Amino acid sequence: MSLPRSVAAHRDAVVELLSGQAATTSTEQLPLLDALGKVLAVDLHAPLSLPPFANSQMDGFAVNSADIPDGGAKLRVAAPVPAGAAPEALKPGYAVPIMTGAMIPDGADAVVPIERARPSTFPNPEARDVEVDLPATAPGTYVRNAGSDIQEGELALPAGTCLGPAQLGLLAALGLTAVEVRKPLRVLLVTTGDEVLEPGRNLTPGKIYDSNGILLEASMRQAGLDVVRSGISDDDPARLLAVLRNHVGSDDGKHPVDLIVTTGGVSKGAYEVVRQAMAAQHVEFLPVAMQPGGPQGIGRFEGVPFLGFPGNPVSCLVSYEMFLRPALSLIHGVPAPRPVQRARLAEPLRSPEGKHQVRRGTVLPDGSVRMEGGAGSHLMHALARSNALVQIPSDVTELAEGSEVEVWML
Amino acid sequence: MSLPRSVAAHRDAVVELLSGQAATTSTEQLPLLDALGKVLAVDLHAPLSLPPFANSQMDGFAVNSADIPDGGAKLRVAAPVPAGAAPEALKPGYAVPIMTGAMIPDGADAVVPIERARPSTFPNPEARDVEVDLPATAPGTYVRNAGSDIQEGELALPAGTCLGPAQLGLLAALGLTAVEVRKPLRVLLVTTGDEVLEPGRNLTPGKIYDSNGILLEASMRQAGLDVVRSGISDDDPARLLAVLRNHVGSDDGKHPVDLIVTTGGVSKGAYEVVRQAMAAQHVEFLPVAMQPGGPQGIGRFEGVPFLGFPGNPVSCLVSYEMFLRPALSLIHGVPAPRPVQRARLAEPLRSPEGKHQVRRGTVLPDGSVRMEGGAGSHLMHALARSNALVQIPSDVTELAEGSEVEVWML
Repeated sequence: MSLPRSVAAHRDAVVELLSGQAATTSTEQLPLLDALGKVLAVDLHAPLSLPPFANSQMDGFAVNSADIPDGGAKLRVAAPVPAGAAPEALKPGYAVPIMTGAMIPDGADAVVPIERARPSTFPNPEARDVEVDLPATAPGTYVRNAGSDIQEGELALPAGTCLGPAQLGLLAALGLTAVEVRKPLRVLLVTTGDEVLEPGRNLTPGKIYDSNGILLEASMRQAGLDVVRSGISDDDPARLLAVLRNHVGSDDGKHPVDLIVTTGGVSKGAYEVVRQAMAAQHVEFLPVAMQPGGPQGIGRFEGVPFLGFPGNPVSCLVSYEMFLRPALSLIHGVPAPRPVQRARLAEPLRSPEGKHQVRRGTVLPDGSVRMEGGAGSHLMHALARSNALVQIPSDVTELAEGSEVEVWML
Repeated sequence: MSLPRSVAAHRDAVVELLSGQAATTSTEQLPLLDALGKVLAVDLHAPLSLPPFANSQMDGFAVNSADIPDGGAKLRVAAPVPAGAAPEALKPGYAVPIMTGAMIPDGADAVVPIERARPSTFPNPEARDVEVDLPATAPGTYVRNAGSDIQEGELALPAGTCLGPAQLGLLAALGLTAVEVRKPLRVLLVTTGDEVLEPGRNLTPGKIYDSNGILLEASMRQAGLDVVRSGISDDDPARLLAVLRNHVGSDDGKHPVDLIVTTGGVSKGAYEVVRQAMAAQHVEFLPVAMQPGGPQGIGRFEGVPFLGFPGNPVSCLVSYEMFLRPALSLIHGVPAPRPVQRARLAEPLRSPEGKHQVRRGTVLPDGSVRMEGGAGSHLMHALARSNALVQIPSDVTELAEGSEVEVWML
């Protein structure tokens, strides 16, 4: 039997397994809102400058700064420029009432805010021959120059950018209505086990309801993956093989999946369906020095990357969070890495030597973390109360109350 | 003119405006996966215990601990219990091969792991009259008792829980296929301004593309809100009023919106369409001591809660993040509050006295934060490069390089 692999080494192996796909992933053009949370496929250059024209940063008077000597000057008030209008050129000796965002007229080079004018209110637009006292103003004052945010042709967003509200807002400001994004990875998710039953069925003795399926499908959906489910496979390796083959073949015209994830059947018991089904494949089953989630499968099924997670629900979640999710973040930029922080233990803790333990806990407002449930990998209720994974390195066996630990916020 | 209101006071006002709705929000029954990210509407009690039956925590032998004296004993090996099977009762003097998760037979009270048996491998299931040497074992060893995670009838999740993968996993483990969640708030989002044009149209002089609409719709969707858009309203108050009235009336049989958010038209210029449209409503327009996003509108339009954000896109995002999003988190538990951390300034910074400044920045892996763009509220490209909002309190006017600041991770 091989020595257990470290958490970091197994994560590296998952990254290596999946990194070949970054280059081959295909793209699609989506309307902006549908692209929320997806990854930009190409370098995107600005089709226009922002702002598209010089505009006022304040409500005030657009002037030619040369018209106002150091002591200030009285200027005649021209017709106002509301936002959205294309103004006439400024005549010498005039000041133009202008609103925030409105276009600076030709001939004007500065804006005097309304508060600094005398009188400090806008005249009635109908009134004629009105004058206003304005102080001297440096050229460029309160003018947002065309292209001061971004110049036409400049790189607006590099390929690989995750598109959130601010990025989509920029694309809209640039006049775009659609964007080319990477297609999400397609994952085949198969839960296995004779004891596992679809929720909603009648529970007979010895059976449990499948929670791994929804736990992982929900996690993967949040990460932007396209999840294909095939129901629950029982402990017959031939039937599991038939399910897997049905999703990797390309000769039947279906788009094959990019990744296979199974749960259960990777341990050392007498009925390990995933191990048995993978016997003829380039798949390794190995212990990782982690608790829970120690037994892991990794390799390729008919060339398609494969990960075999253990069967207990908490082990499944920990396997996903420790290996697959960080690999996706690293390779695809989505999902965003979990926020990592430090917290003080609200209670003392023991951890097995030589194993990286991942406990579930609640980080409290005072910065302490309370453990939820024990180390047991079947404790779903405790997991559902938690807001963080508490990381106990493999060389730590005992921690006192108040010790600082790393926590990953869920 | 009133004195500017503090950021905290305005946030409190938004919370107060919206908190009346928590009680009246209606609920809906959804399949588990569709409930991802939504809020549980009722206290949910476990319809069964987890685990539903005592089961083995290890691959090994189920025994009656009383059958093995201190020095160990040779026991006869019975037919194995795979996971998912309902085993026969244990006969005195026998040990039953049992797999992880499999049901503990009646009469057995402990499990000896396979590693501690001699021989330490399972016998061929076909072989007869095989014996195994087992050490003495305390009752309960490696047995997960029925109900040790949660007892039937116990509170599984309280009303108000946000349903993530772990919570949905628990519901599935309890055999549930659907769950009662709170219906999301319906928000009417209206962008205003004669200068604002739908992306994709032909850009004429003085016009800019609407980015506020998608910026806020994407943010609100991420927060789980149901967003109704009505296109762009121009600067005619009568037309804006017609749009708003169309969404608040209940006599036409349509479900009225729960909240109205507008952008633009709340400042002190000569053409402030939102101010004008709200003249006869219980709506206040006031300065908040914040930059950007100072001018804010708040109140009720025909009884429906109303927020008027300023027109610049960065001001819109900051208004949403500083006021509406925290209020939703506090009242509805969704979205989760932004992770807050501290970072060192990579450069010195000035901030106007008496205003809480919200700058955009990138928190770097070394824990420092670099400013993106200046303070200008029109800098969309700079915003789109940022990963954090940098909070500069109103009493701070100058910060040296290396100073610690609070950052909200976007």
